[in-house]
Amino acid sequence: MQDILKVGIAGLGTVGASVVRLMAKRDNLLSEAAGRRIKVVAVSARSRDKDRGIVLDGMRWVEDPIALATDSGIDVFVELIGGAGDPAKQAVEAALGAGKAVVTANKALLATHGTALARRAEKKGVALNFEAAVAGGIPVIKTLREGLVGNAIERVYGILNGTCNYILSRMADEGISFEDCLKDAQRLGYAEADPTFDVDGFDTAHKLALLTSLAFGTLVDTKGISIEGIRSIKPVDLKMADELGYRVKLLGVALRTADGVEQRVHPTFVPKDSAIAQVNGVLNAVAIDADAVDLTLVGPGAGGDATASAVIADIADIARGHRTAPFIRPVASLTQPTRAPLTHHEGGYYIRLEVVDRPGTAARIASRMAQNKISLESIVQRRSGPVRGGTDPAAADAPAPVVLITYATTEAAVQRALRSMDTDGVLLGRPQVIRIERS
Amino acid sequence: MQDILKVGIAGLGTVGASVVRLMAKRDNLLSEAAGRRIKVVAVSARSRDKDRGIVLDGMRWVEDPIALATDSGIDVFVELIGGAGDPAKQAVEAALGAGKAVVTANKALLATHGTALARRAEKKGVALNFEAAVAGGIPVIKTLREGLVGNAIERVYGILNGTCNYILSRMADEGISFEDCLKDAQRLGYAEADPTFDVDGFDTAHKLALLTSLAFGTLVDTKGISIEGIRSIKPVDLKMADELGYRVKLLGVALRTADGVEQRVHPTFVPKDSAIAQVNGVLNAVAIDADAVDLTLVGPGAGGDATASAVIADIADIARGHRTAPFIRPVASLTQPTRAPLTHHEGGYYIRLEVVDRPGTAARIASRMAQNKISLESIVQRRSGPVRGGTDPAAADAPAPVVLITYATTEAAVQRALRSMDTDGVLLGRPQVIRIERS
Repeated sequence: MQDILKVGIAGLGTVGASVVRLMAKRDNLLSEAAGRRIKVVAVSARSRDKDRGIVLDGMRWVEDPIALATDSGIDVFVELIGGAGDPAKQAVEAALGAGKAVVTANKALLATHGTALARRAEKKGVALNFEAAVAGGIPVIKTLREGLVGNAIERVYGILNGTCNYILSRMADEGISFEDCLKDAQRLGYAEADPTFDVDGFDTAHKLALLTSLAFGTLVDTKGISIEGIRSIKPVDLKMADELGYRVKLLGVALRTADGVEQRVHPTFVPKDSAIAQVNGVLNAVAIDADAVDLTLVGPGAGGDATASAVIADIADIARGHRTAPFIRPVASLTQPTRAPLTHHEGGYYIRLEVVDRPGTAARIASRMAQNKISLESIVQRRSGPVRGGTDPAAADAPAPVVLITYATTEAAVQRALRSMDTDGVLLGRPQVIRIERS
Repeated sequence: MQDILKVGIAGLGTVGASVVRLMAKRDNLLSEAAGRRIKVVAVSARSRDKDRGIVLDGMRWVEDPIALATDSGIDVFVELIGGAGDPAKQAVEAALGAGKAVVTANKALLATHGTALARRAEKKGVALNFEAAVAGGIPVIKTLREGLVGNAIERVYGILNGTCNYILSRMADEGISFEDCLKDAQRLGYAEADPTFDVDGFDTAHKLALLTSLAFGTLVDTKGISIEGIRSIKPVDLKMADELGYRVKLLGVALRTADGVEQRVHPTFVPKDSAIAQVNGVLNAVAIDADAVDLTLVGPGAGGDATASAVIADIADIARGHRTAPFIRPVASLTQPTRAPLTHHEGGYYIRLEVVDRPGTAARIASRMAQNKISLESIVQRRSGPVRGGTDPAAADAPAPVVLITYATTEAAVQRALRSMDTDGVLLGRPQVIRIERS
């Protein structure tokens, strides 16, 4: 049996505490599985006095995370500080510079500086593992790096943010508004006081950027991602989705197209009978379409223990002497992705229009769609109020939602059709446009 | 870059041909990902002249698979011959004995001789990888060996046989009988001419035995598995399942209990809104419940390319120099599992009874359940024929199905209750008893 693998952990929040606790609990199995003992020998965190419900006996306390990163007593530096900036960035750079293997759960750091950090790791011949950075406890990085290495990947997409999925699931189940649902999620601890990062899609985008790079061998490119969050989703959209055979999920989607790599984060209609449509609440899911295999992985995307499970797997791989390049290929082989413009996006669409309710409106809408060569799978018109007798002239211009489901078309065609309708004066308010993702 | 990894493949059926084809197609990525070139240098199969649609140029043809297994020109022996006996067994033994790494898709071989083969691999310090042996293209072995190594696993279960899932899915969708569906599956190539191995649950049991060992650190123990196939399932069972909020799947289930490890293969009621209930047709799924993470993996369980994807991932791991013990821990650490008897099984049940239709029957059934402390979640009685006027004495004993859904109880209690009803003379024919698996 080889020497003990000595681990230093910076950051003892929920995840860090779970890592310490679970590693102690699984000590023997970890040793047997890795062929050597693994021991947390030093930790660093902001407050030394906080009660975290874990035993830190036998671990050195190091005040400065950067000092811990280069500490000669550790082999592996585990970064659980978080954030794209310092001290996390500086600590990871220092650890790699000192030839330490690094394990991190920090998606913001990797989405921003992933390529540069991978280059450092490669130069020193050390591991940079980040299973916990995407979809928490789901081993999707390992699946892409190792499990599907014989595949050419065509698409990777998923529910990558538990907060959004919780909100959309509850809105659908209970018919409540986004605002009410968000308040409740905040009260229950499923959403942050400042929810922007989650509900506006940025967290999903960070994770998507990493998946894209792994799937397509491209440099990490967050700037190439089109991002829409879930604030605009109304209960009526979820109700219509249900009636039409869909559910609404915030997806991150990366797709290889003839024009390049399409990366997008947006609310999406997914067919009710798809595996991903069944993923409710705070769960995450990742689907991978490849030439040999289509896979769907479902599991917890956050939480101390689930995230710690991924961190521990990364540490165990290092203990075994396993090392895969951070983004599968050497950094020099990663290509600058050609960004497929979203206007070229092809797919079906859900379009909800508030329209003036007067003769000829439906015909006008249908003809604008036809002019742009958009075929309709279904068109649903609902009166928002009670059925009228037709005698009240004031009601003639009251808004009535019209819902369209299109067959596959292009984003550009949809935008042109909607601009024409706007010019025609038949639209009231902004159209709701939600892309449909085939499963 | 290290030397080329030289691969020999024995067996060029659907999977073997896909491995050769996909490896050629992915040559550059494989080299980049593994840090060295991987090359199929020799092959062996029964017929040299068969057109397999693949290019075998530059590969030596070796008549005898056992000679290939020990050929000094190869580093890795890939066994795709199949079957628990020779020549597959002899070839794998020979390869391990000669210090070659082995990759195999052979679940029958591993379920029968897995422990002994793992011991040989360990003695020589070589890899014995078998990702393709369980759930085809789903990387569940890697997930258990590496991805979830920080977890204590409580249950692993899944849809592990595509033929059965195809038959049950079609029976449910179309209301047709098992026999008709099987015939159709055979015609379409989804079932073998002799379907016993699939439909009677043996194939699922082989795969379950391997999952159990990986999940619980036990020696491979196929004899400890209770096995029931799907032949007894009637359209009425699928119809009742649908009405009651379930779907019927053939599951392999391994569960850690206070009495030991429970291993069972049987048709199962799963809640409609579970991820596994959505897995239809020839797809496979594996669910893993652990202390830190609950995961569900869905993907193709068979097919040349999907299985080849798993084989290639195993080869790439060997090229990288990654080696995990076949059953995670060293063989000496694997324990003989205590077999939890199925009579101790706890859970809900679906019970369909054909009963004599006379006053007091329902009361008798209810009282026999109560005597055995079985609580009923629902009881449904259906007349099989048209509603009768009550004047035809000959109709009094006509069979009428009674369907019970129980709350959690024990297998022993259910068996006792059914025996009492049989003694009471209220039953006609054999009761249909299907276990409910909570998700």
